[in-house]
Amino acid sequence: METLSPLDRLLKLVGKLPGIGPRSARRVVLHLLKKRDALLQPLIDALIDVRDHLKTCTTCGNWDMTDPCQLCQNPKRDDSVLCVVADVADLWAMERSLAFQGRYHVLGGTLSALDGVQPEHLRLESLVKRCTTGVVREVVLALNVTIDGQTTAHYIASLLHPTGVKITRLASGVPVGGELDYLDDGTIHTAMQARMAV
Amino acid sequence: METLSPLDRLLKLVGKLPGIGPRSARRVVLHLLKKRDALLQPLIDALIDVRDHLKTCTTCGNWDMTDPCQLCQNPKRDDSVLCVVADVADLWAMERSLAFQGRYHVLGGTLSALDGVQPEHLRLESLVKRCTTGVVREVVLALNVTIDGQTTAHYIASLLHPTGVKITRLASGVPVGGELDYLDDGTIHTAMQARMAV
Repeated sequence: METLSPLDRLLKLVGKLPGIGPRSARRVVLHLLKKRDALLQPLIDALIDVRDHLKTCTTCGNWDMTDPCQLCQNPKRDDSVLCVVADVADLWAMERSLAFQGRYHVLGGTLSALDGVQPEHLRLESLVKRCTTGVVREVVLALNVTIDGQTTAHYIASLLHPTGVKITRLASGVPVGGELDYLDDGTIHTAMQARMAV
Repeated sequence: METLSPLDRLLKLVGKLPGIGPRSARRVVLHLLKKRDALLQPLIDALIDVRDHLKTCTTCGNWDMTDPCQLCQNPKRDDSVLCVVADVADLWAMERSLAFQGRYHVLGGTLSALDGVQPEHLRLESLVKRCTTGVVREVVLALNVTIDGQTTAHYIASLLHPTGVKITRLASGVPVGGELDYLDDGTIHTAMQARMAV
């Protein structure tokens, strides 16, 4: 193994982050080095802080400083509706939209034959368990409208069917602000099929 | 001042890096959290390593683990030619091109009336000093072809004139791989004026 200089090692690591190539990595590292007190040191502190204090909520799979997480602890949220998301990123997106006031369940991915993600790799067992306590009345499957997302949704639906809870999914159709001219055929087709009375 | 959670603080800091907005910051942070052992920990180590060991070369202004830097120490490089660059990023770009085998001098920026960068903010005094020892015979001004870069080049040229060293600058013209159709008028104009015999 070749020994890299600390600077090259940092450049290589930053270049591995999603959306950052070798060129952006150089920009980021140079920026950090120019602002050592204002940015480099706080960034190191924040990374260490997150490394040391971030926990995975054993109830829902969210990441937070506490376990159970703030969302699971919040007494104002509706225990009877459970929103199933693939990832913490999706949970954050749902929370930003302010569209949902129930509890969450993070799967930790979606089923994928290509990537070898099998049902046992997802947090499905605890999902079924949460649905059999009698508290949960509805499960909203908020999964990506992709092959993998929809495969996972079907799998979960069949898994939860025996529990008797109501299973719903997010509507699909024309996104808000979307222009028909720029939409793919699949979305227009779906929106037409699911057309609503005005 | 509001108290942010460690996660929000990290998101805010990552979002301050050049080329990374709030959306990419979330992607980067989620990626780091998913790969704590493989990426988060090595990144923390590399950042601390660079913070603790990176020095600014007192001779040329480059950043390196040693002072003088590797480039200044390298006995194979030509002492008689000095390449003046605005920033360490530009020095790296020059080194990647393998076009130059002399020594460097990093200014630490360019003169800019708009940003209030005055001559005393740049490493100009030490540049003049290096040019008066009799070792340096040529100074190549490798500055950006922008208003600020060219202003700085003119200023340095007048500053070094009394020392008697030869002052050159990088050629400007059509970039390699450049298509005339997509080039700005200024570049075409410059390339025509500086046309060469084939």
